[in-house]
Amino acid sequence: MTETLPDFAAVVAAAGRLKGRVRRTPVMRSDTFDRRAGRAVVFKCENLQQGGAFKLRGAFNALLALPADAGVTHVATHSSGNHGNALAIAARALGLACTVVVPEGSSRVKVAAIEASGARIVWCEPGLAAREAALAALVAREPVHVVHPFDDADVIAGQGTAALELIAEPVDLDTVVAPIGGGGLIGGTALAVRGTLGDCTVIGAEPAGADDAWRSFMGGRRVGVDAPDTIADGLRASIGVRNFELLRRHVDEVVTVTEAAIVAAMRIVLEDLKLLIEPSSAVAVAAVLDGRAARMGDQVGVILSGGNVDLGQCPFLSGRVEAS
Amino acid sequence: MTETLPDFAAVVAAAGRLKGRVRRTPVMRSDTFDRRAGRAVVFKCENLQQGGAFKLRGAFNALLALPADAGVTHVATHSSGNHGNALAIAARALGLACTVVVPEGSSRVKVAAIEASGARIVWCEPGLAAREAALAALVAREPVHVVHPFDDADVIAGQGTAALELIAEPVDLDTVVAPIGGGGLIGGTALAVRGTLGDCTVIGAEPAGADDAWRSFMGGRRVGVDAPDTIADGLRASIGVRNFELLRRHVDEVVTVTEAAIVAAMRIVLEDLKLLIEPSSAVAVAAVLDGRAARMGDQVGVILSGGNVDLGQCPFLSGRVEAS
Repeated sequence: MTETLPDFAAVVAAAGRLKGRVRRTPVMRSDTFDRRAGRAVVFKCENLQQGGAFKLRGAFNALLALPADAGVTHVATHSSGNHGNALAIAARALGLACTVVVPEGSSRVKVAAIEASGARIVWCEPGLAAREAALAALVAREPVHVVHPFDDADVIAGQGTAALELIAEPVDLDTVVAPIGGGGLIGGTALAVRGTLGDCTVIGAEPAGADDAWRSFMGGRRVGVDAPDTIADGLRASIGVRNFELLRRHVDEVVTVTEAAIVAAMRIVLEDLKLLIEPSSAVAVAAVLDGRAARMGDQVGVILSGGNVDLGQCPFLSGRVEAS
Repeated sequence: MTETLPDFAAVVAAAGRLKGRVRRTPVMRSDTFDRRAGRAVVFKCENLQQGGAFKLRGAFNALLALPADAGVTHVATHSSGNHGNALAIAARALGLACTVVVPEGSSRVKVAAIEASGARIVWCEPGLAAREAALAALVAREPVHVVHPFDDADVIAGQGTAALELIAEPVDLDTVVAPIGGGGLIGGTALAVRGTLGDCTVIGAEPAGADDAWRSFMGGRRVGVDAPDTIADGLRASIGVRNFELLRRHVDEVVTVTEAAIVAAMRIVLEDLKLLIEPSSAVAVAAVLDGRAARMGDQVGVILSGGNVDLGQCPFLSGRVEAS
């Protein structure tokens, strides 16, 4: 991992490497949703990506970009779920061993998916410090190559290929919206937009309960989040170094949304688009629906980042709201 | 409406007419689902079709196939939901008026969709006799052209285009499965398969609580269902005349599934494929999962017919199962 920032050319190179390796996911829309939103909205369905999330793009690109003489046989990461599974899938496809450090309390379905993809799981306490310590202990014991979930130029470039595919569709876009967790997706998305669409606005969306990117963006200085409190389990990480730099340079606006708006957006997408999205994806949808982003245009593309949901944990899917 | 049966050429002609008029819906798959099913399964996602169901194909084809000098300005049908909305969408696109006879007790979201698509709604009592009587009364009053929901050669041919698109994908199929209500989808699907894949099995799936097609198929004589009792609201109709003839000639096996299996399949597709499907679609999925079809092969294509669900009415989505 170098300190180098990825650029648009890196996203294009990633798209070339990923051809035939990841799904070109469909782009969907709905008249009903457009009426609700008062805009024309298209959705890039990375919830339908293999592994149920965009993360496969970055993980696969990072492994495919390894020098041929690097001699890597075993890769590792820490992840609350989707990146871990993505790395496991990519590693298996390339014949590499994979270990994932997983914090206690992670989404049950996401952990089950990592195991099903053939990776070894090492449990740790929740929180970034514990995750990094457990991964460091692993690195000290075994010759593993670490693929960071988001603060990595190749990972960021890979994530940008989803937006590149969206832009290649016959749709007119004046705004692209993506959720922000560690910032891999928003960073890659911004690079893809800046390299192709001259005057398209890029908006990042974050849960109010994990608003480190918003505070970093507004304050002009990277700050972390200590105790993220949001249903959007994929967005609890604090924004990375490279990721904040890309956010600062290439993103036009960052907005936050409430927990209630996240759950409502999840349900609306299920009803209007027939798509199950995870709360992290719903954050971007909620930003489109709530109308508070000053720079949201009339022709909006949303990156639906993933669809891995514990059905029994979701308030409106489990029925716990109605039963209580 | 003639007594003519459609043939494979009619499906191909329909595909030509529908180009640019209906969505070429995505084909999805899931490793997790394949492990559950013990087969390789691909899903043709007509739940992602405009209007949320395959029905737009047949309705649009029927209107596009009208002779230029027919002078039709107003079309009508009876429908519990998806066909009515499909006809409304197609009529509006072609500048025609549309009236839909809707039985009391129809799915709330489906009726709301018909209204949003600009059709006039005429309510009637539930049951085929009442629906036909209300439509006949309308025809006696006004110069409307009726498009039957399923027992119509152009409608059947249009519905077959979903399978035609599936077959054109780079997938190997030894079996294609579709649900059976009135028989428009299974009829068109069977024509598409017979015209393209020499030795591919066609299986129709039906709820045990509305098993008229199964009884007709087994007995060799078309019989109706008097009191259908199933959550699969799109499959309560009895199989039509042309539809039974196509079933008899071109379908290899008809199987029935329980209500519990239907609901379980709906939930599994939501979890594994991130797709909301309506119970009628889940009937075909349940037939793949329960393993009772004697002629089910290892490489299966399933037509997911629609995704219009009253979220508050679905047992596992509303939480009423857990709350009781």
